[in-house]
Amino acid sequence: MSVEKMIKEIAKDAREAACKLRSIDTQKKNSALEILAEKLLQEKDRIAKENAKDLSTAEKKGLSPAMIDRLTLDENAIQSMARGLGEIVSLPDPVGKTTGMWKRPNGMEVGRVRIPLGVIGFIYESRPNVTVDAASLCLKSGNSVILKGGSEAINSNMALAGIINSALHEAGLPGKAVQVIPTTDREAVTILLSLGEDVDIIIPRGGEGLIRFVTENSQIPVLKHYKGVCHVYVDEFADLEMAYTICFNAKVQRPGVCNAMETLLVHRSVAGEFLPKMAEQLQKAGVELRGCSETVSRVSGVKAAEESDWPAEFLDLVLAVKVVSDMDEALVHIEKYGSNHTEAIVTRDYNRARRFIAEVDSSAVIVNASTRFNDGNQLGLGAEIGINTSKLHAFGPMGLEELTTTKFVVFGNGQLRS
Amino acid sequence: MSVEKMIKEIAKDAREAACKLRSIDTQKKNSALEILAEKLLQEKDRIAKENAKDLSTAEKKGLSPAMIDRLTLDENAIQSMARGLGEIVSLPDPVGKTTGMWKRPNGMEVGRVRIPLGVIGFIYESRPNVTVDAASLCLKSGNSVILKGGSEAINSNMALAGIINSALHEAGLPGKAVQVIPTTDREAVTILLSLGEDVDIIIPRGGEGLIRFVTENSQIPVLKHYKGVCHVYVDEFADLEMAYTICFNAKVQRPGVCNAMETLLVHRSVAGEFLPKMAEQLQKAGVELRGCSETVSRVSGVKAAEESDWPAEFLDLVLAVKVVSDMDEALVHIEKYGSNHTEAIVTRDYNRARRFIAEVDSSAVIVNASTRFNDGNQLGLGAEIGINTSKLHAFGPMGLEELTTTKFVVFGNGQLRS
Repeated sequence: MSVEKMIKEIAKDAREAACKLRSIDTQKKNSALEILAEKLLQEKDRIAKENAKDLSTAEKKGLSPAMIDRLTLDENAIQSMARGLGEIVSLPDPVGKTTGMWKRPNGMEVGRVRIPLGVIGFIYESRPNVTVDAASLCLKSGNSVILKGGSEAINSNMALAGIINSALHEAGLPGKAVQVIPTTDREAVTILLSLGEDVDIIIPRGGEGLIRFVTENSQIPVLKHYKGVCHVYVDEFADLEMAYTICFNAKVQRPGVCNAMETLLVHRSVAGEFLPKMAEQLQKAGVELRGCSETVSRVSGVKAAEESDWPAEFLDLVLAVKVVSDMDEALVHIEKYGSNHTEAIVTRDYNRARRFIAEVDSSAVIVNASTRFNDGNQLGLGAEIGINTSKLHAFGPMGLEELTTTKFVVFGNGQLRS
Repeated sequence: MSVEKMIKEIAKDAREAACKLRSIDTQKKNSALEILAEKLLQEKDRIAKENAKDLSTAEKKGLSPAMIDRLTLDENAIQSMARGLGEIVSLPDPVGKTTGMWKRPNGMEVGRVRIPLGVIGFIYESRPNVTVDAASLCLKSGNSVILKGGSEAINSNMALAGIINSALHEAGLPGKAVQVIPTTDREAVTILLSLGEDVDIIIPRGGEGLIRFVTENSQIPVLKHYKGVCHVYVDEFADLEMAYTICFNAKVQRPGVCNAMETLLVHRSVAGEFLPKMAEQLQKAGVELRGCSETVSRVSGVKAAEESDWPAEFLDLVLAVKVVSDMDEALVHIEKYGSNHTEAIVTRDYNRARRFIAEVDSSAVIVNASTRFNDGNQLGLGAEIGINTSKLHAFGPMGLEELTTTKFVVFGNGQLRS
């Protein structure tokens, strides 16, 4: 069968499964997830065997130890997937939730009720555990999902797909609710991105290259973020002790993720006191600083920042630092170089906090806490399938509710339009 | 200046205006709308003069009387625009509304606050009054808007744009918040649809041809519906007296709109009693019936329906009629031929009503009322900019809230991620 025919069939099957999933109740969906968790633990040897094939190819290809680590499905990784499933079982089912109901002057009751989006295309790289995470979030929110993982994880992903499939059958759910595309052919992605009739939404997760490829080639709406160029602005009224800990946490706690701080903005009136001490802490932790001319003159060991450092997502122990003469300059800098992802202010001033929240156009705007909190789990959504920095549908982390939409329901007793 | 350069400049200006609009308060926006209402009435002669140019071209081109009627901006039409502005002033401002707020175990408060989408591209046909409607809805929801109307209304639209512009200036709002593309060049649309950096969302309103052209050529997400193939299902447990009035209203009250009934589905067990009487009423009102074989055999004067009649949006006094053997058959028919727009059931049975609501995948699912109620005004949204039958962002009529999104705000006191 040609790749095109195969992907079209997968999409048609996904649409059919989505119709059935619409009216399946929570218990059945939870039961499928519980069965899946059990099966993953039972089948850990089979998973390990298939995973070993991917690991051996990866070693031959000379993938980095970090990449190989992310690819590995050892017992720990499998237990962690099973625990993740348990957490999703415990989350409330968004489907069927009435988000509002009101009565019209003519006596009709009008409500809005959450329903699944339909069919989700999920395109991702290396980590095979994402296969189970994404499948379980889509299933719990009543959507069917087509998963396209990285070629380096194909054997692991196919093994997981088989286990997911048998769990769906055992729970009495349509097996085609979760499908893994069984090929490493890149054409499969391009074809999937053209099937707007059968696929409602595309969620890509991975590096900026993948995301740009998907966005440029998709005829289906894409929920995604390209990068997180997150700023912390240390205001002239900041509690400097708090500012040290927040900035250190935002940069150092996990530098390789999208909600880590990439640029530090410091109000001139506190720069003299704050910057040298902050720089020392960061440099001790191995952070390379690239500063504006004022930063360079105030702190030793700082490289002069180039223009390309301001919009950069370093994803590493590198930080751009700029002294600003007032809050306006900080806001203008964020507007120009930011990525609408996450911005934080450290201040004790009530009006500065209010203004920062009102004017910064980011999916999360944070007062006096680390940027690292922009995450579905940390914000209280329970789990996330990704972060969206386009304004459409859901701005910011997307949890179960964000994988649904609402329809209007109307209860009348014979009302006519005049 | 080339069309491309012009449209790019318009989009850049719209983005800049959108930044300013983000933190402008309700009073100022309302004041701009009130000033605009006054100005429209004051400038009615100038509007009429420009409108006369469009009308004279339309007559020369031989446009239909209905089209010319829609193009006409007489005193009535202008007063109606001014009244519409008053209604939008009276609606609550969605921007800044907190849709939820909760406390995390670490003491952080997390909330979601409504913010504007940003820049909206609105592409529409003939009616120039839509220029004022769309501009006022976008402005009230804090968005800037780029309007591209039909070539037949260009003089009227430019006159309205001038008046809107001077109202914005008088109210102290950025003049570029509302821009009308000052050309009838079709290339302008294609260019606008490519400017994803500066335009956040495209809303087309018009015939299916326009909508398909926009969707196929847009690199920006499009909120739209192609057509409304709305069904009424008269169940075996229907109150038949109610069913006559609902079906008559859904078909006849205004047949040329997207929420009018296009297909009537009747349960076999009531078809013998219901169909002949219903058909007589509809035929008396000039409705042409196209029926399944059973309908043809039960009712006189019914044409046999062809396959192409089932997915058809007639927008006219034409109705497809099918007898179904049970509710399952009705649901399968709707799933196959429906447009996810509006579906209604007439029944006295509690379980049938519940099941119809759960299983029908339409933006409005209605029990015992006319399909004609799927409209932002009628459902209580206050006003609508259009109806969306894609699941993304907002399914169904889009009012002021649907022209916004939410961002997360976080209030901490030094929280760090561990």
